[in-house]
Amino acid sequence: MSDIADRLTELGLTLPPPLVPPPGVRLPFRSVHVVGDLAYIAGHGPQTADGSLSPLRGKVGAQLTPEQGYQAARLTGLSILSSLARELGDLDRIAAWGRVFGMVNAAPGFDRLPEVINGFSDLVLDVFGPETGAHTRSAVGLAELPFGLPVEIEGQVHLRR
Amino acid sequence: MSDIADRLTELGLTLPPPLVPPPGVRLPFRSVHVVGDLAYIAGHGPQTADGSLSPLRGKVGAQLTPEQGYQAARLTGLSILSSLARELGDLDRIAAWGRVFGMVNAAPGFDRLPEVINGFSDLVLDVFGPETGAHTRSAVGLAELPFGLPVEIEGQVHLRR
Amino acid sequence: MSDIADRLTELGLTLPPPLVPPPGVRLPFRSVHVVGDLAYIAGHGPQTADGSLSPLRGKVGAQLTPEQGYQAARLTGLSILSSLARELGDLDRIAAWGRVFGMVNAAPGFDRLPEVINGFSDLVLDVFGPETGAHTRSAVGLAELPFGLPVEIEGQVHLRR
Repeated sequence: MSDIADRLTELGLTLPPPLVPPPGVRLPFRSVHVVGDLAYIAGHGPQTADGSLSPLRGKVGAQLTPEQGYQAARLTGLSILSSLARELGDLDRIAAWGRVFGMVNAAPGFDRLPEVINGFSDLVLDVFGPETGAHTRSAVGLAELPFGLPVEIEGQVHLRR
Repeated sequence: MSDIADRLTELGLTLPPPLVPPPGVRLPFRSVHVVGDLAYIAGHGPQTADGSLSPLRGKVGAQLTPEQGYQAARLTGLSILSSLARELGDLDRIAAWGRVFGMVNAAPGFDRLPEVINGFSDLVLDVFGPETGAHTRSAVGLAELPFGLPVEIEGQVHLRR
Repeated sequence: MSDIADRLTELGLTLPPPLVPPPGVRLPFRSVHVVGDLAYIAGHGPQTADGSLSPLRGKVGAQLTPEQGYQAARLTGLSILSSLARELGDLDRIAAWGRVFGMVNAAPGFDRLPEVINGFSDLVLDVFGPETGAHTRSAVGLAELPFGLPVEIEGQVHLRR
């Protein structure tokens, strides 16, 4: 069994099923796209256990608290791990995390953006450990995110050759 | 003749000339920058046939409709293909699309961002087909874009070795 | 002695010490993360000589002038060079700049974003020259940046093999 799958079990984490887009929405791109030993990760948001987007919607710092933003970033991480697991077959194929771009649907004046995206970084570090899970990051405030999502995250990882 | 050039002709598409920046604007960077087998694509916007930036300006969801945003994203795609063709010599050198980052100048509350950036994804898939044209994507709402452009897109592609 | 270190001396530039985060802020990611011959650069902001974040805060086009934004982008560049120098040991290891993503904390209606991020591009070109320093770039307006910073920049560079 995969080390990372073991670690997810140990942490009591369950990965969500593939995203069920909102009705009428067409998303003509891949969630994860492998080119050589690089896996690109499309912008993901938080999902529920049935695959749909989380009902947590709105701006962090207004409709949502920073703590809810942190949870949304953690759920976004589980959605990304789920897409990676489906595309790669085995999360142990990840040799290193690269870049993480964390986008917060920010209420005017809300600039505690790093503590929101920490929900994602903490998850990756818990699951992959401090070496494989190490990454660079930006955590910034967007004007709008699709479907009023509170958080969207994209990035890329490197695969074992 | 190049397969992709043939395909552009078949689709009736003409690529615009190099960007003519607005008067007094200095842009000290490359439109496309090749490093090894990676070609980085700078942020591009929609152009007109004479090379200048499109007169379509303003926020999607306010001054512009989502349909106009879709057209702006498609024009942005043609601008990017034009920069790639000049730098690479031949668009057939593209082995795979990687990451696409689609930025919409979004009016407050306008969150139908994916359908705007579909104007870009649909073009890339039409021109390169579902395998070579496959990519990951984010479609997000920025507070401001240069010169009031409605759409700006950056990304990267991989070249045949 | 390193060519780039010589060039910094010649230009009278001093790199700041490692970032001292604001009190109570946890940043669980790397400033620079090397994977193979790629060095990812996390989102950086302007620093002062003592390592703390610059007191220049607020939106460019409102609290700050475009000229102050340009200076903030230049200081952000020095912060990035400092992180790269610490991680790489020697800035001469940089073979090529890749992608630069320049984010401006933009006041409503402020769209002169390229001239702000020119503060970064001009620095990189001054220090590395027109070939090694060549890069692609986006310069866009974010709704909010961490700690009210006026500018945040991320990117990636390629290392000599």
